[in-house]
Amino acid sequence: MSVTEPLADKLKSFRSYVRKMKSYGEALDVMYWDLRTGAPKKGVGVRSEAIGELSAEMFKMSVSDEMGRYIEELTEPGVFGQLDELNRKLVEECKKEYDRSKKIPADKYQAYVVLTSQAESVWEEAKEKSDFAMFQPFLEKIVAANLEFIEMWGYEGHKYNTLLDMYEPGMTVEKLDPLFAGLREKLVPLVADIQKSASVPDTSFLKQSFDVEQQKKFSRYILGELGYDFDAGRLDESVHPFATGLNPGDVRITTRYLTDDVTSALFGTIHECGHALYEQNISEELIGTTLCTGTSMGIHESQSRFWENMIGRSRSFWNRYLPELKALYPDRLGEVSAESFYRGINVVQPSLIRIEADELTYNLHIMIRYEIEKKLFDGSLAVADLPAYWNEKYKEYLGVTPSNDGEGVLQDVHWSGGSFGYFPSYSLGNLYSAQIRHTMEKALGDLDDLVAKGEFAAIKNWLIENIYRYGKLLTPDEVITRVTGEPLNPDYLVDYLQSKYKEIYKL
Amino acid sequence: MSVTEPLADKLKSFRSYVRKMKSYGEALDVMYWDLRTGAPKKGVGVRSEAIGELSAEMFKMSVSDEMGRYIEELTEPGVFGQLDELNRKLVEECKKEYDRSKKIPADKYQAYVVLTSQAESVWEEAKEKSDFAMFQPFLEKIVAANLEFIEMWGYEGHKYNTLLDMYEPGMTVEKLDPLFAGLREKLVPLVADIQKSASVPDTSFLKQSFDVEQQKKFSRYILGELGYDFDAGRLDESVHPFATGLNPGDVRITTRYLTDDVTSALFGTIHECGHALYEQNISEELIGTTLCTGTSMGIHESQSRFWENMIGRSRSFWNRYLPELKALYPDRLGEVSAESFYRGINVVQPSLIRIEADELTYNLHIMIRYEIEKKLFDGSLAVADLPAYWNEKYKEYLGVTPSNDGEGVLQDVHWSGGSFGYFPSYSLGNLYSAQIRHTMEKALGDLDDLVAKGEFAAIKNWLIENIYRYGKLLTPDEVITRVTGEPLNPDYLVDYLQSKYKEIYKL
Repeated sequence: MSVTEPLADKLKSFRSYVRKMKSYGEALDVMYWDLRTGAPKKGVGVRSEAIGELSAEMFKMSVSDEMGRYIEELTEPGVFGQLDELNRKLVEECKKEYDRSKKIPADKYQAYVVLTSQAESVWEEAKEKSDFAMFQPFLEKIVAANLEFIEMWGYEGHKYNTLLDMYEPGMTVEKLDPLFAGLREKLVPLVADIQKSASVPDTSFLKQSFDVEQQKKFSRYILGELGYDFDAGRLDESVHPFATGLNPGDVRITTRYLTDDVTSALFGTIHECGHALYEQNISEELIGTTLCTGTSMGIHESQSRFWENMIGRSRSFWNRYLPELKALYPDRLGEVSAESFYRGINVVQPSLIRIEADELTYNLHIMIRYEIEKKLFDGSLAVADLPAYWNEKYKEYLGVTPSNDGEGVLQDVHWSGGSFGYFPSYSLGNLYSAQIRHTMEKALGDLDDLVAKGEFAAIKNWLIENIYRYGKLLTPDEVITRVTGEPLNPDYLVDYLQSKYKEIYKL
Repeated sequence: MSVTEPLADKLKSFRSYVRKMKSYGEALDVMYWDLRTGAPKKGVGVRSEAIGELSAEMFKMSVSDEMGRYIEELTEPGVFGQLDELNRKLVEECKKEYDRSKKIPADKYQAYVVLTSQAESVWEEAKEKSDFAMFQPFLEKIVAANLEFIEMWGYEGHKYNTLLDMYEPGMTVEKLDPLFAGLREKLVPLVADIQKSASVPDTSFLKQSFDVEQQKKFSRYILGELGYDFDAGRLDESVHPFATGLNPGDVRITTRYLTDDVTSALFGTIHECGHALYEQNISEELIGTTLCTGTSMGIHESQSRFWENMIGRSRSFWNRYLPELKALYPDRLGEVSAESFYRGINVVQPSLIRIEADELTYNLHIMIRYEIEKKLFDGSLAVADLPAYWNEKYKEYLGVTPSNDGEGVLQDVHWSGGSFGYFPSYSLGNLYSAQIRHTMEKALGDLDDLVAKGEFAAIKNWLIENIYRYGKLLTPDEVITRVTGEPLNPDYLVDYLQSKYKEIYKL
């Protein structure tokens, strides 16, 4: 590329370079999806090698001299200002990725990849055996490596901010501390009050034997009702449910059917549907760019949680759909009222395992992990002291104590892969969704009324208009501020949870 | 790579280069498989682009300067002799591909890709409308382009030999003419005699309504019986059934269930199973090389046809399995004897459409296409005269005449994509399979006895030992000569067909 080349040509070749990277991404996404939905086990070795080759190639493209030249030339003051918004954002996004990757020496990064890959299998065994000591040296090395990377990447304020930014651009400890504190102050007493309530929902009818074919039928029906586009996606099964957006025309979700639980697969499906509605409705002009995805983990999670909890676990939803579910299982659910069903699916029970937690206590599980991650990166907590600190916090926030580290500090896979900074996204999702819901109701009227009438299109279209279509064109902070008129504020989630659960538990 | 680099290092980097190409191939195979088994339609545009990017990348690697240097250095007389057999074959295979691709100027090849891509959609419409004139100019250009390529590639004897060699390495008009003539001389009168026979099999019981779930169950059961490894593959559905071998640990097949036909999907499944047994059992040492596939279209087709026709359409197979099929459809098949069933699935009926033809007349459909392709490339038949020549040959070989070009000369997709030289593989498959079967019986005893006892493992293991494990290490000619002790000879197929069909038709 010569400097005299006109800007249009320069942009064209930059865009085609990025589109090629996205093509590798599409190939990788299909290969991963396939591995997780039924690829034959004897082919896994060769497949992993192919995934390794293509990932390496894609990474090389993101840090190549060619990419470096595009970034240098397109960020020149006289040039950058001439770009339209999409191209500016795209150049910035590529530059952020380029800078971050370039700062880590290749040999250090390679060693880290090997370390985390080993750590993940060690973790699996350690969890199985409830043996933290086995995992400890690996976790120590992973934390040390991340501390080293943070020095190379640079940081402002708390060192952990650099990690938070990878999942939630712009998020900091300084912002998160008051958000989580505001939430915790109200949730801990609320959970305690619920514990003392005499009005405990009956859940026995949820745990019978439920034919899986009927469950599939119902899940597909509900997806259609919510506006999931089956011409731009498909529903499959996998051990761990997930959503994957190859491009807006191909956003796949999976679920897992349990024979002894009628709602587990359904709520999983609605959760992934929320992620999928976001990805299916990103503006077409972003296709072929790295902006064609959700803007952050937190905003993404706000959508899965909005559709799962605020729609799927609402009273009006079950007033509308319980008769249809009953028709599939007349022997099992014939006697259950919509009110009992609603209360049953919203039972609150402090527990040890995050992924099994209810909508309310889930946030407390996240805050424990957040407190630990902060302390690991400001040096105030040693890896060796993790189990004790974990158990102490579970007692303090949830009133429960793990009987071993397998159901305690070893329960999550995240740290073995070095994913520090990821956990807060889950609660951020809840915070965002409550605040967005509040604004949505000002625009569309009472959400329960819409759900009662099955007017999901109005809800979806409002979200498309205000959030989905932008993909990564807006930062998470821009999204929440533009949509709701204020920065993230914990009061909306507190209000939503208090009002919902005080009513259920007659407090 | 420097010339002083030791051979081991040179080989290592060559092999890793080839392995990378295979990784792109694995990604492409998954993407194609996915497109054909249920990818959402709105994602097809982006997917096609991704496939285009990756294919281009793989092609570039096969003709790159780096590949050129590997070939040059590894074929040096002092070096080539030091290589083991696998590496020699691999270098030769890469060289063949490299030379063939390098001889076509990039702009001509690009124009040809565009031409055939347009031609395929024009063909689709022309077939629909039975309008040969619409397709004619495209076909003329495709033939002309192939003639030009043949001049660039070079040829020995008949120009068509160069095209035959792409699908069946080493095959020539000089070899094929007597093979097909020997076959035709015996088959045309046999078909005529069958037409006159008073003993016509009843087929009415095959065409009832058959529940698809039961068909699936039976197809999967038979696959297991034949030795298809479900841990190294999977069975799905697609409009056009196919088998695809990503690697020996991942060889997938598809079929298509018809509600009004109990054997269509089953025989399709067994056919693809034959392809899959070949690919699943290629030696592991060939993984990661371009030799890790069937040696030719013809040998591949010999395996699909052996398992489909010589096993699946045999009397002993149905003596064994009809009771199990009846158990699934007692109302439909309860009264049918194994003998009637056997005769019904082997009915001979000269017809217009190749893909619906029976085991016997199928070969005559192929010979017509072979005669035409030869004449197109020796200049003795103009594209404009194709329909008349086609109809004349159908009358001569099969005694039937198409009522329009849609069910005549326009019926196959192959020519629109420029796949000249491909059709003979189908009949070569039949020829190979009969000759291999003859040798197999000398080694293992009567095939019917083995099938009657369900001893498919003995059959499969013999084929693995003698054919499958070699992949592309042996040429098709080496395979047939080493296995059977003689070059391809049409008598075996003639004997097999005469003996089978004279008995069925009581001639």
